[in-house]
Amino acid sequence: MRPKDQTKYNAIINTSLKLVKELGFTDISISKIAKQANISPATIYIHFKNREDLFTKLYTKVRTDMSNGALQGIHERMDIEQAFKAIWLNSFSYNLDHPDYLIYREKFEQTPMMENIKHNDFELYNYVTNLFQRGIKEHSIKDHSISLLTAFAFFPIITLLNFHFEGVINMDENHITEACEIAWNTIKANDD
Amino acid sequence: MRPKDQTKYNAIINTSLKLVKELGFTDISISKIAKQANISPATIYIHFKNREDLFTKLYTKVRTDMSNGALQGIHERMDIEQAFKAIWLNSFSYNLDHPDYLIYREKFEQTPMMENIKHNDFELYNYVTNLFQRGIKEHSIKDHSISLLTAFAFFPIITLLNFHFEGVINMDENHITEACEIAWNTIKANDD
Repeated sequence: MRPKDQTKYNAIINTSLKLVKELGFTDISISKIAKQANISPATIYIHFKNREDLFTKLYTKVRTDMSNGALQGIHERMDIEQAFKAIWLNSFSYNLDHPDYLIYREKFEQTPMMENIKHNDFELYNYVTNLFQRGIKEHSIKDHSISLLTAFAFFPIITLLNFHFEGVINMDENHITEACEIAWNTIKANDD
Repeated sequence: MRPKDQTKYNAIINTSLKLVKELGFTDISISKIAKQANISPATIYIHFKNREDLFTKLYTKVRTDMSNGALQGIHERMDIEQAFKAIWLNSFSYNLDHPDYLIYREKFEQTPMMENIKHNDFELYNYVTNLFQRGIKEHSIKDHSISLLTAFAFFPIITLLNFHFEGVINMDENHITEACEIAWNTIKANDD
């Protein structure tokens, strides 16, 4: 993409994030995005077939960026506990720094557009699934289904970030470390 | 309320739940609800000042019903573990049976109307807070802040129900019991 096109592409993305946050999905048309982003609707149609295509590609971008953020610095020489905690802390920080992404993700996942998304398109999903499976095999992680492990170990990140943004709890460094320990204790196999 | 008024009131409530599920909040007016519920807007204004008042009272009703569902059969002679597990299982079943309530709650909590809600208006919130505080004092529950305990022990119910409704996992009786055990193990103090 030429730099000029990249600038316009970014304007479409950022305007869409902002509008979905303010209005939800039902009220947003391509022409509304174009107007707010100060570009022509034709420019949007160069990149996206229609509004559903735009929203779906934006979701994919959000999840891919989250995935890359979470996996930063993870390497194969880490043991299960080290890799789990590093991914957990990365995810927390990344989402803390990108509240618009979190809101977009939550809202998108409540729409029927979600039916076109495959979770295993995202590296984080595959990496964590694999990590849990290895951990179960090595008896370092409790033998539960991946969905249960994910629900109890990773999804509280989203709950805690919502609490943080609502002012229910201030997730400072101490609370983040404490929460990461709880998450690990929730899934680690007993040492007996 | 007279039986006839109660019928109309229920029609307003059920239509609003249905419309919010389908359209989100931004697209719904009192006149749209009236039309769909097949009653006059004037009837709605007998019960509610405006759309915000209607949506807020509906949220309060949803949370109050959830609270009553979760606390059914809980009594003071239960110990901390018994009370926690009974509330957890009640909550799971109640929300499993009321998917429209869950969707309404999630969508409402993403709106600025949430600023008018006080969590301690709901008996469940106070009961659980009190239960956790007692548990920490008696050393049967780990000494973390109430927000952390809630995020790791109770909010996975919502995640797992979403997984269930999306078809990611089938939350049958075995999985529900297993998940309740994980929730308890997450917060219970170590026996050493």
